[in-house]
Amino acid sequence: MDVNEGTRWRAEVFISLRPGVNDPQGLAVRDGLRRLGYTEVEDVRVGRYVQMWLRAPDRKTAEERVGLMCDQLLANPVVEQYRFSLEPA
Amino acid sequence: MDVNEGTRWRAEVFISLRPGVNDPQGLAVRDGLRRLGYTEVEDVRVGRYVQMWLRAPDRKTAEERVGLMCDQLLANPVVEQYRFSLEPA
Repeated sequence: MDVNEGTRWRAEVFISLRPGVNDPQGLAVRDGLRRLGYTEVEDVRVGRYVQMWLRAPDRKTAEERVGLMCDQLLANPVVEQYRFSLEPA
Repeated sequence: MDVNEGTRWRAEVFISLRPGVNDPQGLAVRDGLRRLGYTEVEDVRVGRYVQMWLRAPDRKTAEERVGLMCDQLLANPVVEQYRFSLEPA
């Protein structure tokens, strides 16, 4: 079966900075929230939420392909980590 | 109880563009993936994944506060939508 056929899958990819990596954007959001009065906010980390729709013959193939896409393009392995969920679309 | 005391919560906020709103960044990622050979990718939507650690006396208060923070600062209601999950940290 051609990889473009088969089931349509929806992947949700959650990309975040690795622990210990500085997050100036997160700090800015935290400070902004505190200025608005949300003083209970202790820490904020900002990352990317990517939704993808793709075709694959089965779940295993879809998982492999999404993993490769994350490693190759979506996440910067030096400073970022990712996880993803997958469901038939 | 002061809102800064109580349980420490971790919120995960998923912010995405509303359906129908153009997503040039998503298109760029899709085209990039296709150029890398992932021709099975049909659509990509890029949003923000925000993790927050906050204190609140109970789940209901934490949910209300996170909702307010999303409405006021984290998500642009005109073009974005959000959902979030909450768990004790």
